[in-house]
Amino acid sequence: MKAAIMGYGTIGSGVAEILRVNKDLIKKNAGEEIELKYILDLRDFPGDPEEKKLVKDVDVIVKDPEVRLVVETMGGVEPAYTFVRKMLEAGKHVTTSNKALVADKGAELIRIARENKVNFLFEASVGGGIPIIRTLNRSLTGDVIEEITGIVNGTTNYMLTKMTNEGSDFDDVLKEAQAKGYAEKDPTADIEGHDACRKIAILTSLVAGQQVDFNDIDTEGITHITATDIKYAKAAGMKIKLLARSAVAGDTYAARVAPYLLSPSHPLYSVDDVFNAVFVRGNMLGDSMYYGSGAGKLPTASAVVGDLIEMLKHADKNIYLEWKEEKLTLGNPEDQENRYFIRTSASKEQVKEAFGEAEFVDAGIQGECGFITGLLRERDYHEKIKKLPDVKNMIRLD
Amino acid sequence: MKAAIMGYGTIGSGVAEILRVNKDLIKKNAGEEIELKYILDLRDFPGDPEEKKLVKDVDVIVKDPEVRLVVETMGGVEPAYTFVRKMLEAGKHVTTSNKALVADKGAELIRIARENKVNFLFEASVGGGIPIIRTLNRSLTGDVIEEITGIVNGTTNYMLTKMTNEGSDFDDVLKEAQAKGYAEKDPTADIEGHDACRKIAILTSLVAGQQVDFNDIDTEGITHITATDIKYAKAAGMKIKLLARSAVAGDTYAARVAPYLLSPSHPLYSVDDVFNAVFVRGNMLGDSMYYGSGAGKLPTASAVVGDLIEMLKHADKNIYLEWKEEKLTLGNPEDQENRYFIRTSASKEQVKEAFGEAEFVDAGIQGECGFITGLLRERDYHEKIKKLPDVKNMIRLD
Repeated sequence: MKAAIMGYGTIGSGVAEILRVNKDLIKKNAGEEIELKYILDLRDFPGDPEEKKLVKDVDVIVKDPEVRLVVETMGGVEPAYTFVRKMLEAGKHVTTSNKALVADKGAELIRIARENKVNFLFEASVGGGIPIIRTLNRSLTGDVIEEITGIVNGTTNYMLTKMTNEGSDFDDVLKEAQAKGYAEKDPTADIEGHDACRKIAILTSLVAGQQVDFNDIDTEGITHITATDIKYAKAAGMKIKLLARSAVAGDTYAARVAPYLLSPSHPLYSVDDVFNAVFVRGNMLGDSMYYGSGAGKLPTASAVVGDLIEMLKHADKNIYLEWKEEKLTLGNPEDQENRYFIRTSASKEQVKEAFGEAEFVDAGIQGECGFITGLLRERDYHEKIKKLPDVKNMIRLD
Repeated sequence: MKAAIMGYGTIGSGVAEILRVNKDLIKKNAGEEIELKYILDLRDFPGDPEEKKLVKDVDVIVKDPEVRLVVETMGGVEPAYTFVRKMLEAGKHVTTSNKALVADKGAELIRIARENKVNFLFEASVGGGIPIIRTLNRSLTGDVIEEITGIVNGTTNYMLTKMTNEGSDFDDVLKEAQAKGYAEKDPTADIEGHDACRKIAILTSLVAGQQVDFNDIDTEGITHITATDIKYAKAAGMKIKLLARSAVAGDTYAARVAPYLLSPSHPLYSVDDVFNAVFVRGNMLGDSMYYGSGAGKLPTASAVVGDLIEMLKHADKNIYLEWKEEKLTLGNPEDQENRYFIRTSASKEQVKEAFGEAEFVDAGIQGECGFITGLLRERDYHEKIKKLPDVKNMIRLD
């Protein structure tokens, strides 16, 4: 069966590499060979092993009936959306690694694929090499998913791990991550939590079977996390991790992206460096966790190739997937219950007066105190915190 | 679509329970309802909510063309094998939780399913609620799987966790596990590693695409692990875990079931109590890990229900799966390389003479010494160990 790749950047070239290197294995697992016929890219790649397959006009692929499998690794919503739509409407299966596209247009593209009796898969769009999408769509289907909590951004996990292990400050670690290529020149999407937000929107859409708008998710990044916060976390025997969370709230889900303090008993506690992991709780299954490389050329391309093989095995059939276009109204974030770690220059007496119950953490920092509240709704936290004169930081607990 | 359950024990009744409790969710995810029509069991269950569905004759199910989906949760090879075969030959899809059946007859039943254009699925046969089978068969298909290492037996993991946390002896912990229902009256299959051996045989068959005979796998249980060994493990900063391992060895795999010492950096280190986990390394994906409830009524039944939904979605199609009946010749276990932890009453001088390189572990035990060798082939270990007069125990390192 013949395939095409749209976008010959890091992931796209990784897909071509895996199709070359693991050719025999792929043939064995798929039952037949996957032959790469075209690569769409406006750039030239002189000397590249796939140089002769490069084309600049998307319609060459659209109009070639031999091509049944298409990979989209261009990134961004446009022109990826227009191209993917053309391919689906031409009766070609499409897999994408593009989280922006899936978060924005997933429901619609799934419908278009269904109408054209092909498949639109997107394993690589969340968690890189971690097969979390197929696990939710094809394995944990007998369970009401009560909670999904992920460490789904490698950049921020690397940074928080460095800050934890070396006691370094945010700005220094960011510079180092940029120098190593773990953070982009403009790191906003990672450090402000926007990337994690799109990913939890996709995962929530899948378990709810309905479109979740990422703009509706309360999102807080890690830019306010300091070396002092890390000291408190250590004194409390915990780690700070950027979590993307979604949990059943009545007949909908409530979602949030924010840094959280995790204790060692949590399955995500030991997920360090650039690794990602997703914790899933089902009403029958109980707790489960999926761990691996959340990004990187080959792990992400490996997920794309897994989709290619899956599409080949289902070349004549749309695999039903519930993801309605009607937007899901998420639970009010003010109703969420958490415990909160708070740093303040207020006295312990003032803290007790404001919060009643409070567990003080001694990290040996002068001129302030850190404490952990009991379980409180966000709205109650916001009320109580007003009573403290000087709040230096707040981090939720999981 | 109508379904039948063969075997109304713990798992079978769990499947019926999930079909009742999660009925709406299952209908949403499957695209149509799964209606339980028959339950095959020789026993009576007066007062059971499914009482009216009980039948004692397997042919009632075989001959009912309405039943397209069959669950096998009887356990053991016979009569499960005969019944499953009948169902497949009658054009019904079958899912089983029965590892003995899959390890023994997997390749043949997959072929029979293919010949009859139906599916034979077995997610629940390894790792209970952990979706490791579908992950290997349907997600990590673009990767050469270089290593699979699992904690796949909950009983022994519970026991080793207890021994580690409480310093208790093997016999006491076994009695407690039996009292709590975590270990069977006859615990042999668990504590001697036979259960783990069948599971790694199934996983190895899947990644090799060929039948692996579990009798060919070197298998060592945990009965020789003592409270003293645990003390050494702690002194070395490690934990003892029963691992079922399989790794690429030339053009085949080499497999082993044995207790291993794990350091904290290993993803399986923090898998405690009755939880299971499987670590998978792919040549493109890198390291990944899948964690969850390895046993228990509802987690295991959840995996069966996931298979039911998958079979419903593929009711008119066999999903290709490579698992040839021809037996795979495994790599020679004597060629495997490991480091070894050894306890002996020999002197440090004798140890150094025998092994050259040796890292001594001080656990404060009188009258003996414990040490860790460098990387050695099994055959070389067997040669060198002969030079030590009194060897009290040996545990491999991962």
